[in-house]
Amino acid sequence: MLGNFSYCNPTKLYFGEDSLKYLNAELPKYGKNIVLIYGGGSIKKNGIYDEVVKILKDNGKNVAEISGVMPNPTVDKLYEGVEIARNHQADFLLAVGGGSVCDYAKAVSVSVNCGEDPWEKYYVRFEEPSCETLPVGCVLTMVGTGSEMNAGAVITNPHTHQKIGHVFADEKIMPKFAVLNPKYTLTLPHYQMVSGIYDIFNHICEQYFSGEDDNVSDYLSEGLMRSVIHSSRIANRDPQNYEARSNLMWAATWALNTLVAKGKSTDWMVHMLGQAVGAYTDAAHGMTLAAVSLPYYRHILPFGVQKFKRFEVNVWDVDPAGKTDEQTAQEGLAAMEGWMKELGLVMNISQLGASAEMIGGIADSTLIMNGGYKTLNRDEIVEILKECL
Amino acid sequence: MLGNFSYCNPTKLYFGEDSLKYLNAELPKYGKNIVLIYGGGSIKKNGIYDEVVKILKDNGKNVAEISGVMPNPTVDKLYEGVEIARNHQADFLLAVGGGSVCDYAKAVSVSVNCGEDPWEKYYVRFEEPSCETLPVGCVLTMVGTGSEMNAGAVITNPHTHQKIGHVFADEKIMPKFAVLNPKYTLTLPHYQMVSGIYDIFNHICEQYFSGEDDNVSDYLSEGLMRSVIHSSRIANRDPQNYEARSNLMWAATWALNTLVAKGKSTDWMVHMLGQAVGAYTDAAHGMTLAAVSLPYYRHILPFGVQKFKRFEVNVWDVDPAGKTDEQTAQEGLAAMEGWMKELGLVMNISQLGASAEMIGGIADSTLIMNGGYKTLNRDEIVEILKECL
Repeated sequence: MLGNFSYCNPTKLYFGEDSLKYLNAELPKYGKNIVLIYGGGSIKKNGIYDEVVKILKDNGKNVAEISGVMPNPTVDKLYEGVEIARNHQADFLLAVGGGSVCDYAKAVSVSVNCGEDPWEKYYVRFEEPSCETLPVGCVLTMVGTGSEMNAGAVITNPHTHQKIGHVFADEKIMPKFAVLNPKYTLTLPHYQMVSGIYDIFNHICEQYFSGEDDNVSDYLSEGLMRSVIHSSRIANRDPQNYEARSNLMWAATWALNTLVAKGKSTDWMVHMLGQAVGAYTDAAHGMTLAAVSLPYYRHILPFGVQKFKRFEVNVWDVDPAGKTDEQTAQEGLAAMEGWMKELGLVMNISQLGASAEMIGGIADSTLIMNGGYKTLNRDEIVEILKECL
Repeated sequence: MLGNFSYCNPTKLYFGEDSLKYLNAELPKYGKNIVLIYGGGSIKKNGIYDEVVKILKDNGKNVAEISGVMPNPTVDKLYEGVEIARNHQADFLLAVGGGSVCDYAKAVSVSVNCGEDPWEKYYVRFEEPSCETLPVGCVLTMVGTGSEMNAGAVITNPHTHQKIGHVFADEKIMPKFAVLNPKYTLTLPHYQMVSGIYDIFNHICEQYFSGEDDNVSDYLSEGLMRSVIHSSRIANRDPQNYEARSNLMWAATWALNTLVAKGKSTDWMVHMLGQAVGAYTDAAHGMTLAAVSLPYYRHILPFGVQKFKRFEVNVWDVDPAGKTDEQTAQEGLAAMEGWMKELGLVMNISQLGASAEMIGGIADSTLIMNGGYKTLNRDEIVEILKECL
């Protein structure tokens, strides 16, 4: 059943080896005061920072900077960035980095003119902005989150051990444009690359494994998953393969820009579990998802056997002949496990720094969603997390 | 290889059984003078006209009408509509109908402030608008063309026997919004329904059958094709099945809103052949495509064997074991032929009113594209058209 929905995604994307030049087409649309936002400084080593700064200067912009945005951007970093953007009277926020930097820029965008504490308003009460927001543009250097074409922004509060994502309702929070140059992703360490790949794949799973759906979104999801599996195997063997890296970059965008969720319910419990692990360990996002996925999916499989069976046949090409539905469904997860190990993903949370003593706290930090095949209770979450150790 | 490209599709879509009410959210964004554009009057019989006019009145709009837009809108009808829009000092064009009505509205949009003959400028010289264009909104009542979320507009010149589509480059030509209510499509005669279904499917084929591609677009195309095949079989048996009709409506939008063409070459020769047949016969668009497809694909198959083989395996689920690549590829087209006959599509152009005497003229009217596996010459076009008789 394809339910009622609206769809609008106005982000303009510039994709390819020469895409940075299109900043020259976009920047004149916005005011003079730009805040350039980036992470730990890798863009200074690989030359992207210099290229971007030159284009900003050529366009006569007045630039302030927020640097040091961490992989899990904290609420304190958010407060700091809001101050910088306010003092600069920012007209535009330009994020150069991966999903964390893009997410952070969107969080600053909705907070600059917000009279309240943005953590309380957006991440505790989940309200929408009631103030003017700032336009955001992205130059993407890491692949995985899809943040370049959606209205989501994940922020971590280390004081309360919470890592929470807010997907804003208004498409004006989406980046106005994003520059996607696959070449920028070629220098990423293997660990980050495969972490991003699993993030892509799991975004699709979160939207696919829900409902007794039979709709366009599920067919598109299957196509995207097949594409990610195919390209990830090439990129894993040969990280310098531009074709594979460019396909992964494009698939990542479509895995989480709202399309494959349209007209159906969605799950998102792997993200809730993984984000709680991340709040305790500060581990790479994709690896937290990888480490909790299989125990979670095996736990919910009995409540969604038909979809897991379809997953095996349509995504993993396993022949269902002569098997029970349950066997077929289990084989899909076994095929997925084989692929995850082939990529070298982290398969348990102990390796990420989580311990048995943390389980209770992680379970308390796990938001419980109700769109999937089974709404978990706290005991089930503890049980699943123990299996993830 | 995923090439360089840009992507932007800002059309806002309202999908579902209650979607017409969102006109109330959109209309206040535009000026007072609206031109309501529709076709042969079926919207007056099924009540949609009355509903739309009431909403326009409730929003205080000043409405002029262009009615009688035909299935293949002519250049003379375009001139007539441009006059009406000019005299009304139109602020906004609201198309209520199928793809022809949406296409026509876009053609009026780019012509109202155009100082030159729009046929010469847009359909002979293929220029982009150098004037202000009018915003367009759509209420879709037929499924197939994808016109509700793209910048294409096909116009027919019966004087020169030419039916030509121009896909404008600027996303501002795309409809600002489209209302997609699957219920509106339930009353369509079976002939029109399956004609639209084949139009959807062929749009995907035109973008899929090209290049030695191995990219996200091809995987998305395979997912869309599988979805269309699945839902079309349900709709063919049970045209009142809302679920199947809604999936077809949504798949149609994504089959031709530029996504699945990104980063790759495209073919479009079935459309060029079919449109030339349409210019001579005024037949339903989807049926002209159905009638020329198989002779065309069998002609080009030797130049794209690997892709046709992939088509059979990934779209039609045929087992390639023990077959040559050529045999496997041929079986894909045989499976497609079986599905086309099951739907009751017109399988030759004679049934659409074309005769052997027309072949030369149709061949002369066929635009030759060069993005597919084989750039045809006139002799090949004549040969293919003879096989289509």
